[in-house]
Amino acid sequence: MTDKQFDAVSGMDVPRFAGVATFMRLPQKSIDQANDVDIGLIGIPWDGGTTNRPGPRHGPRQMRDQSSMIRRVHHLTGESPFDRARIADLGDCPVNPIDVMDALTRIEKHYVHILDKNILPLSAGGDHLCSLPVLRALAKKHGPMGMVHFDAHSDLWDSYFGGFKYTHGTPFARAIEEGLLDPARVVQIGLRGSVYDMEDRDFGKKHNVRMISIEEFDELGVDQTMAVARQLVGDVKTYISFDIDCPDPAYAPGTGTPEVGGFTNREALYMLRKLRGLNIVGADVVEVSPPFDPSGYTALNAVTMMFELLCVMAENLNAND
Amino acid sequence: MTDKQFDAVSGMDVPRFAGVATFMRLPQKSIDQANDVDIGLIGIPWDGGTTNRPGPRHGPRQMRDQSSMIRRVHHLTGESPFDRARIADLGDCPVNPIDVMDALTRIEKHYVHILDKNILPLSAGGDHLCSLPVLRALAKKHGPMGMVHFDAHSDLWDSYFGGFKYTHGTPFARAIEEGLLDPARVVQIGLRGSVYDMEDRDFGKKHNVRMISIEEFDELGVDQTMAVARQLVGDVKTYISFDIDCPDPAYAPGTGTPEVGGFTNREALYMLRKLRGLNIVGADVVEVSPPFDPSGYTALNAVTMMFELLCVMAENLNAND
Amino acid sequence: MTDKQFDAVSGMDVPRFAGVATFMRLPQKSIDQANDVDIGLIGIPWDGGTTNRPGPRHGPRQMRDQSSMIRRVHHLTGESPFDRARIADLGDCPVNPIDVMDALTRIEKHYVHILDKNILPLSAGGDHLCSLPVLRALAKKHGPMGMVHFDAHSDLWDSYFGGFKYTHGTPFARAIEEGLLDPARVVQIGLRGSVYDMEDRDFGKKHNVRMISIEEFDELGVDQTMAVARQLVGDVKTYISFDIDCPDPAYAPGTGTPEVGGFTNREALYMLRKLRGLNIVGADVVEVSPPFDPSGYTALNAVTMMFELLCVMAENLNAND
Amino acid sequence: MTDKQFDAVSGMDVPRFAGVATFMRLPQKSIDQANDVDIGLIGIPWDGGTTNRPGPRHGPRQMRDQSSMIRRVHHLTGESPFDRARIADLGDCPVNPIDVMDALTRIEKHYVHILDKNILPLSAGGDHLCSLPVLRALAKKHGPMGMVHFDAHSDLWDSYFGGFKYTHGTPFARAIEEGLLDPARVVQIGLRGSVYDMEDRDFGKKHNVRMISIEEFDELGVDQTMAVARQLVGDVKTYISFDIDCPDPAYAPGTGTPEVGGFTNREALYMLRKLRGLNIVGADVVEVSPPFDPSGYTALNAVTMMFELLCVMAENLNAND
Amino acid sequence: MTDKQFDAVSGMDVPRFAGVATFMRLPQKSIDQANDVDIGLIGIPWDGGTTNRPGPRHGPRQMRDQSSMIRRVHHLTGESPFDRARIADLGDCPVNPIDVMDALTRIEKHYVHILDKNILPLSAGGDHLCSLPVLRALAKKHGPMGMVHFDAHSDLWDSYFGGFKYTHGTPFARAIEEGLLDPARVVQIGLRGSVYDMEDRDFGKKHNVRMISIEEFDELGVDQTMAVARQLVGDVKTYISFDIDCPDPAYAPGTGTPEVGGFTNREALYMLRKLRGLNIVGADVVEVSPPFDPSGYTALNAVTMMFELLCVMAENLNAND
Amino acid sequence: MTDKQFDAVSGMDVPRFAGVATFMRLPQKSIDQANDVDIGLIGIPWDGGTTNRPGPRHGPRQMRDQSSMIRRVHHLTGESPFDRARIADLGDCPVNPIDVMDALTRIEKHYVHILDKNILPLSAGGDHLCSLPVLRALAKKHGPMGMVHFDAHSDLWDSYFGGFKYTHGTPFARAIEEGLLDPARVVQIGLRGSVYDMEDRDFGKKHNVRMISIEEFDELGVDQTMAVARQLVGDVKTYISFDIDCPDPAYAPGTGTPEVGGFTNREALYMLRKLRGLNIVGADVVEVSPPFDPSGYTALNAVTMMFELLCVMAENLNAND
Repeated sequence: MTDKQFDAVSGMDVPRFAGVATFMRLPQKSIDQANDVDIGLIGIPWDGGTTNRPGPRHGPRQMRDQSSMIRRVHHLTGESPFDRARIADLGDCPVNPIDVMDALTRIEKHYVHILDKNILPLSAGGDHLCSLPVLRALAKKHGPMGMVHFDAHSDLWDSYFGGFKYTHGTPFARAIEEGLLDPARVVQIGLRGSVYDMEDRDFGKKHNVRMISIEEFDELGVDQTMAVARQLVGDVKTYISFDIDCPDPAYAPGTGTPEVGGFTNREALYMLRKLRGLNIVGADVVEVSPPFDPSGYTALNAVTMMFELLCVMAENLNAND
Repeated sequence: MTDKQFDAVSGMDVPRFAGVATFMRLPQKSIDQANDVDIGLIGIPWDGGTTNRPGPRHGPRQMRDQSSMIRRVHHLTGESPFDRARIADLGDCPVNPIDVMDALTRIEKHYVHILDKNILPLSAGGDHLCSLPVLRALAKKHGPMGMVHFDAHSDLWDSYFGGFKYTHGTPFARAIEEGLLDPARVVQIGLRGSVYDMEDRDFGKKHNVRMISIEEFDELGVDQTMAVARQLVGDVKTYISFDIDCPDPAYAPGTGTPEVGGFTNREALYMLRKLRGLNIVGADVVEVSPPFDPSGYTALNAVTMMFELLCVMAENLNAND
Repeated sequence: MTDKQFDAVSGMDVPRFAGVATFMRLPQKSIDQANDVDIGLIGIPWDGGTTNRPGPRHGPRQMRDQSSMIRRVHHLTGESPFDRARIADLGDCPVNPIDVMDALTRIEKHYVHILDKNILPLSAGGDHLCSLPVLRALAKKHGPMGMVHFDAHSDLWDSYFGGFKYTHGTPFARAIEEGLLDPARVVQIGLRGSVYDMEDRDFGKKHNVRMISIEEFDELGVDQTMAVARQLVGDVKTYISFDIDCPDPAYAPGTGTPEVGGFTNREALYMLRKLRGLNIVGADVVEVSPPFDPSGYTALNAVTMMFELLCVMAENLNAND
Repeated sequence: MTDKQFDAVSGMDVPRFAGVATFMRLPQKSIDQANDVDIGLIGIPWDGGTTNRPGPRHGPRQMRDQSSMIRRVHHLTGESPFDRARIADLGDCPVNPIDVMDALTRIEKHYVHILDKNILPLSAGGDHLCSLPVLRALAKKHGPMGMVHFDAHSDLWDSYFGGFKYTHGTPFARAIEEGLLDPARVVQIGLRGSVYDMEDRDFGKKHNVRMISIEEFDELGVDQTMAVARQLVGDVKTYISFDIDCPDPAYAPGTGTPEVGGFTNREALYMLRKLRGLNIVGADVVEVSPPFDPSGYTALNAVTMMFELLCVMAENLNAND
Repeated sequence: MTDKQFDAVSGMDVPRFAGVATFMRLPQKSIDQANDVDIGLIGIPWDGGTTNRPGPRHGPRQMRDQSSMIRRVHHLTGESPFDRARIADLGDCPVNPIDVMDALTRIEKHYVHILDKNILPLSAGGDHLCSLPVLRALAKKHGPMGMVHFDAHSDLWDSYFGGFKYTHGTPFARAIEEGLLDPARVVQIGLRGSVYDMEDRDFGKKHNVRMISIEEFDELGVDQTMAVARQLVGDVKTYISFDIDCPDPAYAPGTGTPEVGGFTNREALYMLRKLRGLNIVGADVVEVSPPFDPSGYTALNAVTMMFELLCVMAENLNAND
Repeated sequence: MTDKQFDAVSGMDVPRFAGVATFMRLPQKSIDQANDVDIGLIGIPWDGGTTNRPGPRHGPRQMRDQSSMIRRVHHLTGESPFDRARIADLGDCPVNPIDVMDALTRIEKHYVHILDKNILPLSAGGDHLCSLPVLRALAKKHGPMGMVHFDAHSDLWDSYFGGFKYTHGTPFARAIEEGLLDPARVVQIGLRGSVYDMEDRDFGKKHNVRMISIEEFDELGVDQTMAVARQLVGDVKTYISFDIDCPDPAYAPGTGTPEVGGFTNREALYMLRKLRGLNIVGADVVEVSPPFDPSGYTALNAVTMMFELLCVMAENLNAND
């Protein structure tokens, strides 16, 4: 299945630095134009949940810019997601930079609209609170989901600043409480760094979330870690969430809450490839903060992860045909 | 009047790079310890009203760091504000990075507390919405005030994103509506840059705000511009607000809404000196955004402006003794 | 005349950091779709004529990004070019980064296509050699033109590296030799910096080019300088070329051949406004080199200059209706 | 043992970017106020021994700033050093940026004062010559000590520039000559990079210093390397010195003498944890050079290492109670 | 063999930051003066083959600057290449930044000149197309060679932009077609990243090039990978080409075509050491792009690789004496 | 008089980025080779007198690099200093980064050597303390000199850190005390910024130093300011010292002690041109600190000032023939 209107512009024909920057040089379509899209790349330019260093609101734009570096074919498989699926840049989601609750509503509504069109969403954050309204929209369609979550942080905290429940440290506590995720089908990989206290770990344990610290990952290795993850989510509908702070700050300095001692890029890439065949209903790559990395290589890492996810998602899509 | 406990550490005794960074190397005091303070330097680490590029929440810290470059004596007068007044770093104001309305309340309350101690506040922002709760606290004590406002933008807009009334583009519209400012005693200097439409200018005209564009400033020159400003505010209680985007981006790249074609540093310094003798009840320097200027020279400019303000404010204080 | 399909997205409705970046948040149209466009904004992502520090090939993208900061209305006139003319982002011109002669051909051909549609081109370079193929296309339609040229350099050199005639130091020597420009109607403003020898000045003198150094500008001032320029070009068809190295490096560090001692932003803006009423058949802003200014404020300056040009060009367009 | 006056400010209550920056958001105390302090965090803002790229004089300030990212509890143990020990920021040590010998005297004297109060010092450099006066003060109290030294360089050179004996390449040669260290109890881990000649290796061998190159580390792995180190120092009084150039420049670009091919952050963290139970009488993290990493992630790495050291030191303290 | 006129300046005598920057602080000689030189370090300041982000034309200068950090002796062997061979900085090769074909001719001619003097060339690029004219010169002397090629990319593409055959993506396709390399003696190590299609892999397979992806490397490890390489080239005359994009972008951000997921510095260093004893007739380190890494640590990595190559090359030279 | 061996390499023949970087692409000569040199460009890579932010030790190297941008002819006069005088890069002066007194001795001795060869020195600092040993060497030959001193700071302080008399804040107090300068023939232009106290102003007044603040300069203008300076030094032997912190930080961020509110580049250039005809016996441009401006445009400003000085000095030289 190759549909020329959905092909990415090649750097062999048009130099990579040329042209208006869309995700992976794909055609841009509004949702209304997107009737025949299989997978939609959507930016969520919002960081209203950020408790410390802001910036991910600028993430989608820098990620689009850097994504010109991505070429159409995976070097190991020789295959292109753009041959397997109709993929488009659906632009950015409506947001509100000065009102958290309004932004959550706008994002959820936008994703309901996308899902109504049977488009599989791959989102570019935005801070991690962005995942919550996306999960809300997905759960309306799919019910409680499993999740493979790559992150330095559990994001399972209850509240900040005296009872404020919606921050980028709380989305998955909310998602579990709201029944969007089946916590026994949630695995978190790469946890590390100093913590406020053990509240998030206790919350995770109580709900049977499988939490894999970087130290446990170091013992298990890539293959076994992912075997644990795959077994856990099995064939349930599964969301993939990749926080760019899961690699070490050396690999991803452009993020708001870096934690020393994370993944190498190779480890991250290899783990994503092990998602092949899972029943993925959506995914995101979040927390790229351009002001903290003007060089853009954090964003390049992020869009490389998005490309790996696209390859897996497009393949799954065909497998399900 | 020299009170050794309020003196700044000298770079001749302790190198400027040494020590915990407080504003201008002054002693830090909590408000409860601040019974004998005349002028308080307060950080407002908040940018919840920012509609575009965030970052001023990090302003006070970078400004404290750069303020180690400030020495105690003004080179023209040979006098030091630290000899004329008891000045201290009162630390940062409580804020809330994820809830605008809660933050406005916290800030106002903190300034009421400061004003109860008869401390003259000189604040380091934060985005420009920070000025609103400060004005609310001041107006409780002083009633409607005049204002000399240096800025590329009027900040007199009504609302953003479909009716949201509290952003860094709206503080002075709110302040006028709430009766905190006497608009006929408000002068805005340095306006420029493309605009959404003429709503803010119309609002200003309707309320008799005196708006001086950079082009008008260019015709008037420093002296006449400030003569206009001084005549306008006369001897009424007056607030001074200095947005670091009033200089040209070449002088202050580290800000969220730079507008090409602004003041030089010399023009800005000379204007501030012309505030001498006004009845100043408070002042702020806002919109320093460290992520957009890691070099820190925007913050250096900002704290140099703060030092000029301090000189004027300390002198006035004595004049009123 | 307001045509909603040509309006720029407002930062009051959609935050400035959101969405795929087009010039000034205008709709993007391919040339084939551009039948009703009055003024076209076109990127020329090419720096094949650069003899020293490369990078302007990345200029259009960073300029599109920064142009999100531009709002729709000019603060002095209260009018918007987007109300006066149908303006669109026509995307980037075809180029060839590794073959100078092929690139010159591709660019010229693309502009012939644009001019066939009666679109007035405002281009974003690219290095200054980009102006040559644009002038070739324009001269086919208009014959020899006048030019107001803002630059630190005359770009009137003959050749480099042993006879190579097409570099960013030679475009206007070629344009004069080829009869694209009427040299007696060409004025260059802002010349300065050390030179190889006096060859370019001699070439200029020989052809009656009016060369105004920064030192002469300093004596004349903005108004008189522009009076000289306006008198020179009169009502002949005129091209405007603005090299971002005409401002001082403090205002525009992101360029390949900075020359110490240039214009301030205010001088540059005021000069552009004095182009009002000239018979402008095309314009460009060139030599923005993003790798030498990751902060983007050079590009912000450049797009601010583009907006001033747009205002003048749109107004002229109406005047000619 | 929890003493509220010694607790770190939590990012759940006060945002991390707020407030005057002290080490790990701990209370600041002058030495005179520090009668009940168990572990003191001290900055040594000095780089007078630097033979090449200066900057570590600015280290403590950037490290304090970045240390706001550290939270109070270790994620693996669930315990906080701030519960186990009374820890405070003791400010910066007196120095002299223009006279090496005077600076050495000032630093030693300051540490004698600290040790008189029975405070366990954890210092933030400064260049590596800072360790010498600290060792002098410690040796007065403890006699010759063992040392676990993480570094790309042995710092065992004799002299530079024709006989100058006090540089950041010579501190441990001096310390051994002066009998501050028992060389047979000194282990150096991570040595690499080109060298002037084999003088330092010969000096080390002659004095039975155990030198572990990065290549030997690669063969041994973390566990065995640290087993060697632990066996060597046994239960003698031991100093820990961590030069931030021991990680690879990718992890710590902000240092004066980077050497390609160093530790990953994970390796470094895991090694520090293996210091648990040693008889540590002092420690330092040195050579963070902010001008060479304005992003601050080198400093973040450094303070993360300090936190790991604090955890070990606080635990030991209790064990010895 | 020690020849004082060929010794590097020591940082123990003259600080590393002092003096005109030559490669590794070696004496500079013109080719005419270079009669007694064994190994020549040559800069190729050219990036005319670059299809995307330019900058390697500035590589040699930044590499010279950073190479002041290299000391004369290898820490593992205790030996110095400067004792084993007469090594000099031969300055930069003539180039032409605006004409690809002319530049190729100039470079080849320069290397023919160098080879006529029996100097073993170690070049600092420049983009990867630089290797082609060097190979042309070498092949004139040595006939078809083997090659050990460290790179993220195969550089075996046919053409770009509609038939342009000379870019930094095509040099080794040309070299094989022209008979400069014996493809069955060519091994490429570190291949990864998305690709246009499988054309390059097919070309490689067809010509029996041994292509080792990063994934295969991960399975083989350093020792086995290099065993494969050594076996392949055996004792034939062999060229070594090291593209600085073979390490991960975290280790080498300053390059034009970074690919996420590459070598660590340790892996790269260890592989180079395994070249000991091969019959090396020339080598290069290419694609350092200073504008994309002003910090210079990419260049530091590159010159460290050059030093490792020098050690191997100087040792081989003696072995052949 | 044109001597081809002393000509600068032209960017028309060899691209500016190519070749080993010497000052203005001139030939490098050791002092022993410099028998026929008229004007020597000498680097002083030393910042041992720096009391705050270090870095000028790296100044000469970055200035050499940026000086490739300078072409051979002055655009106003059409003349080249390289035609008028034999000018060479004499390399860097011996220094000692860790011992102030030893460095002062090394520098003075080196300049005595240079002056013995009748070479007119134009130095590139280094911090401002570098001027002291140069003045010592010059005074041995010429006796007490006049000085035109462009600076934000008087550098007339007595001592720092409890009696340390040799810092970059004290060189001209020492020079006056030692009789190297005739204080009544010293003019300082551009003084500004906060000060410790009035000690330096008092010292200046007491010795009849003519101190022109930036405010006085603003009233006088360029022409009158320089008329004052010229009248003061008359035809006595005169030293020119240009501290790069005399321009505003917007023009020269890369310096250790920036003071807001300084010269524009145009003002600085025009003032230097007014030195024509003075009896200049030496000059320096100091305090360029590369770590605080990796972009290099501060250094570009500095070498542009050096070129203006060269033009004046070479012209004078001829006038005296």
